[in-house]
Amino acid sequence: MDVMSRIEQALQAAVGRAEAPGCPPRLAAAMRHAVFPRGARIRPRLCLAVAAACGEDEPGISAAAAAAIELLHSASLVHDDLPCFDDAPFRRGRPSVHVAFGEPLAVLAGDALIVLSFQQLAVGVAAAPGRLAALLGIIGGSVGVPGGIVAGQAWECEPEADLRQYQREKTGALFVAATMAGAAAAGSIPGPWRLLGEQLGEAYQVADDLRDAACNPAELGKPVGRDAALGRPSAVGELGLDGAIDRLRALAAEAVEAVPACPGASELRAHILSETQRLLPRELAATAA
Amino acid sequence: MDVMSRIEQALQAAVGRAEAPGCPPRLAAAMRHAVFPRGARIRPRLCLAVAAACGEDEPGISAAAAAAIELLHSASLVHDDLPCFDDAPFRRGRPSVHVAFGEPLAVLAGDALIVLSFQQLAVGVAAAPGRLAALLGIIGGSVGVPGGIVAGQAWECEPEADLRQYQREKTGALFVAATMAGAAAAGSIPGPWRLLGEQLGEAYQVADDLRDAACNPAELGKPVGRDAALGRPSAVGELGLDGAIDRLRALAAEAVEAVPACPGASELRAHILSETQRLLPRELAATAA
Repeated sequence: MDVMSRIEQALQAAVGRAEAPGCPPRLAAAMRHAVFPRGARIRPRLCLAVAAACGEDEPGISAAAAAAIELLHSASLVHDDLPCFDDAPFRRGRPSVHVAFGEPLAVLAGDALIVLSFQQLAVGVAAAPGRLAALLGIIGGSVGVPGGIVAGQAWECEPEADLRQYQREKTGALFVAATMAGAAAAGSIPGPWRLLGEQLGEAYQVADDLRDAACNPAELGKPVGRDAALGRPSAVGELGLDGAIDRLRALAAEAVEAVPACPGASELRAHILSETQRLLPRELAATAA
Repeated sequence: MDVMSRIEQALQAAVGRAEAPGCPPRLAAAMRHAVFPRGARIRPRLCLAVAAACGEDEPGISAAAAAAIELLHSASLVHDDLPCFDDAPFRRGRPSVHVAFGEPLAVLAGDALIVLSFQQLAVGVAAAPGRLAALLGIIGGSVGVPGGIVAGQAWECEPEADLRQYQREKTGALFVAATMAGAAAAGSIPGPWRLLGEQLGEAYQVADDLRDAACNPAELGKPVGRDAALGRPSAVGELGLDGAIDRLRALAAEAVEAVPACPGASELRAHILSETQRLLPRELAATAA
């Protein structure tokens, strides 16, 4: 089965729990709306690419880890879009969850997706239960305190925030989880995989800032220009457009170099090169060539 | 160490993670506000009482399970109090989290407490890692889909809700988690402990409805009469005041009978009898004697 099918199958099985008898149907529908149809699935693909490079012996475990990360990513988008944060009317070209289902169900769907991430991990790791604690620690740490995505978002509520820390925690944490959990799912030591995740996370954040500053909202599927409008830290604001493009290219090159020794290192380097080349928005790739 | 000190110590260690360097200080303060100072800690005390009755061999594991349940309970109160749900101005006699810290931090503190529950479980179960998957499944199921507290709360967003189902999921789920996780933490089979948790959860819900209908808000530490004001299902609305008192007594007696065979069954029965007698509000105990 190809990588994308494995991810979608694991996510379908997870969200299917919400459609079991006895679950409120509108909650289940709100959760499905948040997870499907698929986005780019960048984080779970990275997780599976690392697991494969590490000589994956239990594909079910890496798929569960990949799904856990995507469910947490989906949950964070639902809560980020709430009126008290971004108040975003649409996401991936469709109404955001609170617009489609109301604010109470958006709060609850986000909560339930966080929990679902861990519920399905408990089941999915059954083939090698000794790996569960490490995966739970890696994935839990990437979303919670002190340095996960929730903590990253909470920096918006502090009087002063450091751009690097904000970016690292808000976007980088799930990329670090993807690389480290991919290794742990394959029974490898996860620590050496942190740096790769940090660099890819920062590359993705710079690319997102570039898209926010320069793209067409219809193409992106969400509003643009919001970083500047909301006074948020942004690589474009800090480095300028050309500086941010240079930074993205440097990060991509560093990421390729950061792949630790492993059986499938060369395939993984090729995957990273291909993925990071796609990060630069097309409009900018043309003008900056 | 006594039971309450064990619970507080485990919760302090968990919330202490949010106070590590690099965590936004206001997020950490909002999480601490939600968990301390202590309420009655009914669910974690039940969890530890069941673990002791099952011949607890690893006290650190039962303490981690008990803390996980209380962290999830605290998270659910923070989100339930939000303006889009109860819009509750105070809780345990103090401002609710969104009043004290703002709505964004209340959403994030609830999210972070959910994740923290699972993060500290991964660490706390290290002495017998084979028990982690069962504990994660029990505790995750009690808060998520299809039948946990989040699902219970989501019934409020459905056009029709069944009183029993609403009560079972909203209040009962964490009592079921307390009894089943207490058994699993001690290495016992959790299934036989479900019924006890269901009966105690329903007893607690009936007692809560009685307090809502009959008590003084200053004594309770939160607003009263809200079930009727919000048109919510309530045992008092369905059975009347005397009927609800009779129901509470019957559930308490059934719970004592429902204790499964275990080394410490008689001590556990005494604990349950003592706890359920304290559930009936004092004003009503006097008039209904």
